[in-house]
Amino acid sequence: MSKITVVGSVAFDSIETPFGKVESVLGGSATHFSAAASFFAPVNLVAVVGNDFPKEHIKFLKSRNIDTEGLEIADGNTFAWKGFYEYDLNTAHTLETKLNVFQDFEPKLPERYTNSEIVFLANIDPELQLSVLDQIDKPKLVVLDTMNFWIENKKDRLLRTLQEVDIALMNDSEARELAKTFSLLDAARMIMSWGPETVIIKKGEHGVLMFTENTHFAAPAFPLEEIKDPTGAGDSFAGGFLGYLAKTSDFSEQNQRKAVVYGSVMASFSVEDFGLNRARHLKQKEIEDRYAEFEEITGF
Amino acid sequence: MSKITVVGSVAFDSIETPFGKVESVLGGSATHFSAAASFFAPVNLVAVVGNDFPKEHIKFLKSRNIDTEGLEIADGNTFAWKGFYEYDLNTAHTLETKLNVFQDFEPKLPERYTNSEIVFLANIDPELQLSVLDQIDKPKLVVLDTMNFWIENKKDRLLRTLQEVDIALMNDSEARELAKTFSLLDAARMIMSWGPETVIIKKGEHGVLMFTENTHFAAPAFPLEEIKDPTGAGDSFAGGFLGYLAKTSDFSEQNQRKAVVYGSVMASFSVEDFGLNRARHLKQKEIEDRYAEFEEITGF
Repeated sequence: MSKITVVGSVAFDSIETPFGKVESVLGGSATHFSAAASFFAPVNLVAVVGNDFPKEHIKFLKSRNIDTEGLEIADGNTFAWKGFYEYDLNTAHTLETKLNVFQDFEPKLPERYTNSEIVFLANIDPELQLSVLDQIDKPKLVVLDTMNFWIENKKDRLLRTLQEVDIALMNDSEARELAKTFSLLDAARMIMSWGPETVIIKKGEHGVLMFTENTHFAAPAFPLEEIKDPTGAGDSFAGGFLGYLAKTSDFSEQNQRKAVVYGSVMASFSVEDFGLNRARHLKQKEIEDRYAEFEEITGF
Repeated sequence: MSKITVVGSVAFDSIETPFGKVESVLGGSATHFSAAASFFAPVNLVAVVGNDFPKEHIKFLKSRNIDTEGLEIADGNTFAWKGFYEYDLNTAHTLETKLNVFQDFEPKLPERYTNSEIVFLANIDPELQLSVLDQIDKPKLVVLDTMNFWIENKKDRLLRTLQEVDIALMNDSEARELAKTFSLLDAARMIMSWGPETVIIKKGEHGVLMFTENTHFAAPAFPLEEIKDPTGAGDSFAGGFLGYLAKTSDFSEQNQRKAVVYGSVMASFSVEDFGLNRARHLKQKEIEDRYAEFEEITGF
């Protein structure tokens, strides 16, 4: 078992999809990641919330084996995001982003986080991602997620941070934008040339591709009866992926493939309900059953 | 080994993509299908061309073990299509369609085609598809392809023809349009309720999904260095799929999965060059090597 530390956002999300609507529910990249990863291994959470953050949310995180010592409670309000999805559910349309206490976030890691073997740098400012890395003593596996905002506004810093990263994780459109090429194969090679040994490209309903210099792996998405809310799917994927790697402490390409499938399993559960609702009553057996279904779906 | 009969178009294609341009090359759904299937099993071709159709094309088809007795040569010009693709290569934009002799096509099957075990109804008028089926004596496996034009203009006839079909094959956008639902799982179920036991949905660069009442299979597309011309990819898929089923005479769901992968292999070769160029110098060993690569790419 390896220890995971994640840095990212903890937020209030207000979300509307064609299938319903929620107001100010617990969300954020670090939250979705932690909730998914916690089914496999303990997680150290590094993030900031305001003093409006309800105690019941912290209680929930602790109940999921998530260490919240690194969750700073700052004066002010918690980061809040409001957005909606149209029928195709692939693109989040932002209505409002209030950074609030996140604006001045300076991650400071508790002493006991500094020997974490696995670090997940969720989608935040690449400078903050780097400052977290600087506080960890020789991690064995560093995984970075990012998004178009940083690609467009802080590309230099992002490229600097990528030098320290083992696995880069992003959406297909982000990979294309970052590498300035349509071919995902070319994009992955370009990103690898900047540092990461492995590039994982998330394609939403079309599954996931994982590239290394000499190998490549393709996993489909799980075909779902109903998708209510795609928010957090990518972070849930990362949580399942790194959770499984932490549980097994085996970072080989072969084991990373299994981890990609566990990631896809966790993403598939995440979208079945709004916010973290599905994770709240998810059972270990459901995870294993869906993993077996993935084997069944892809075998030939 | 089972015999395959295909009915569809044989055409002159003029194609422009960001990677090049060709004028009046041999194309058409039945041609691409036959060229791919002929690597696995002999094919009976039912189609019509004009008396402008060069003898060298017929010579090429014969050289590939394609029976051309069912290729009618009518007075007039051969069906001609002109179109282009933009950078994403997913959508064909039609500039010109000259039906020519195809306008009055009435498929008449040579006697020796009438005991074919496998029938592929390529993307043509569903009434013609049905008239071909009527001429074949109890086929074991009937596969139908279609497109938005027939869904929009002859839906009643298409639904009638689907009643006689074992496997319906179409693009994701066509399946959504036909079933009037966004979910591909729901669309497949709807289409199955109209007759076919199996629905195969082609998703271009995102691979293929195959649904039956109780099973489902997902295959990725092969990640290619370069894609020059997507024309005929879907028919090449069908050719590899049915060619393999004909070669093995095993129509079980398990063997259909292998056939889907052979279909994906043939589609991946097809798009590497314009028209039928890649098929002209394709080697059996290249097919088997790429099949093995698919196993490598999808295993976990």
